Amino acid sequence: MNLVILTEADLSEGNLYRLMDSRAEHIRRILKLKTGDKLAVGLVNGPKATAEIMRVDETTVELYCDFTGGVPATLPKPEIDIICALPRPQTLKKVLQTSASMAVRRLYLVRTNRVEKSYFDSPLLEKQNYTRFLIEGLSQGGFTRLPEVSIHHRFRPFFEDNLPETERAQEDIPVRLCPHPEASEHLSQSLKPLPERVIVAIGPEGGWVPFELELMRKLGFQLIRMGPWILRVENALVAVIAQVFTATGQNV
Amino acid sequence: MNLVILTEADLSEGNLYRLMDSRAEHIRRILKLKTGDKLAVGLVNGPKATAEIMRVDETTVELYCDFTGGVPATLPKPEIDIICALPRPQTLKKVLQTSASMAVRRLYLVRTNRVEKSYFDSPLLEKQNYTRFLIEGLSQGGFTRLPEVSIHHRFRPFFEDNLPETERAQEDIPVRLCPHPEASEHLSQSLKPLPERVIVAIGPEGGWVPFELELMRKLGFQLIRMGPWILRVENALVAVIAQVFTATGQNV
Repeated sequence: MNLVILTEADLSEGNLYRLMDSRAEHIRRILKLKTGDKLAVGLVNGPKATAEIMRVDETTVELYCDFTGGVPATLPKPEIDIICALPRPQTLKKVLQTSASMAVRRLYLVRTNRVEKSYFDSPLLEKQNYTRFLIEGLSQGGFTRLPEVSIHHRFRPFFEDNLPETERAQEDIPVRLCPHPEASEHLSQSLKPLPERVIVAIGPEGGWVPFELELMRKLGFQLIRMGPWILRVENALVAVIAQVFTATGQNV
Repeated sequence: MNLVILTEADLSEGNLYRLMDSRAEHIRRILKLKTGDKLAVGLVNGPKATAEIMRVDETTVELYCDFTGGVPATLPKPEIDIICALPRPQTLKKVLQTSASMAVRRLYLVRTNRVEKSYFDSPLLEKQNYTRFLIEGLSQGGFTRLPEVSIHHRFRPFFEDNLPETERAQEDIPVRLCPHPEASEHLSQSLKPLPERVIVAIGPEGGWVPFELELMRKLGFQLIRMGPWILRVENALVAVIAQVFTATGQNV
């Protein structure tokens, strides 16, 4: 827990935040903080600040924090949107955590040919269930902005209608990448000059089918080679974001 | 399971391999293969080849595979050695799997100031227990060479004696990297020309203490900035290997 994430629901009165869950436990037992100590906190989708501990007891930690005048959270550049073939729930938890901890802006969870239909029945796809994993990720990565998660039951409409529609409203055209084991071009050759935004499509276990690849190619996705390995979905996500950062870090 | 990993223990007679565990289950239920079908296999620490299925029943899968004349497995360049502060067992499982799936050559598990001593009592540190996770990683990543795992109870002797000793026997001096949140230089600026080998040191949750950083600096480790996030150990491992590949992929 590198940043304690607070929400409006934690506010008890004035600028006093009352924690009674695992965050309180963490502050008490792992960080071993006491009344008067300070720690870094962030308001979900809001600014970061320094809080002062007003009270610690067996059940509760109370923090005083004034967020007014705090600078609203910004995302590192380039902003990264992830399109991810919906994985099984255990993997999805990791994808949610990692997305938040690596400052993903949007996470589109999409049905593809090789996604099992039953995955869409998981209770984890409900906002009140998945938000917990996003918050854990923010707390790990040191960010406050929740990735915007959306779920798409149909592949073609998502890519043909929804995705371009989303983009038409934007001024910039984001770089569109699709890691693929048979691609030959590395990411490092693809990201000059520094783009404002990058969209990365991560396939399911078993990969994309030819129709899906063809459709993405038509929509301007470049196939890129991440490396000599075949990665699990949760690792592919980490790897590609790390590579985008290296490939653009040279320019900034 | 992208590559079915076989061992000498699976050999029943001639070139016939008999599987009765989760690999057989995978071939039967996930891959849905039948007698006469072919699939990619690899001999642990040996070559890859194509096997033919001779028999499938409820308990057993028999494969015919002739590895003679197969090309011994090589590791992608640069070869990567990982020094990892020993994490808690649940994280260690992921570190083992990822190391094998991303073709790490050696994995040094080291005690540091912020490593809990109790982690060294985990049964997972016994070879017969951790090998399973390495094999799973090979099977995922498509490699056959097991990372060489070693465990080091003392920090300073490992770095001062053991590590340079190991290196003195080598002709090349490997690039030595230490990802650190306060570093400013990115990896992409560090890896020209393509090195033969890279050693990366990954710190514990909570980071290195100043003495440890100072010692590593003296031994030629460069602090590098991976990105704007703070990553879990298992994700830091993926990220840094992915970045090494991008940073060297430009040269090959």
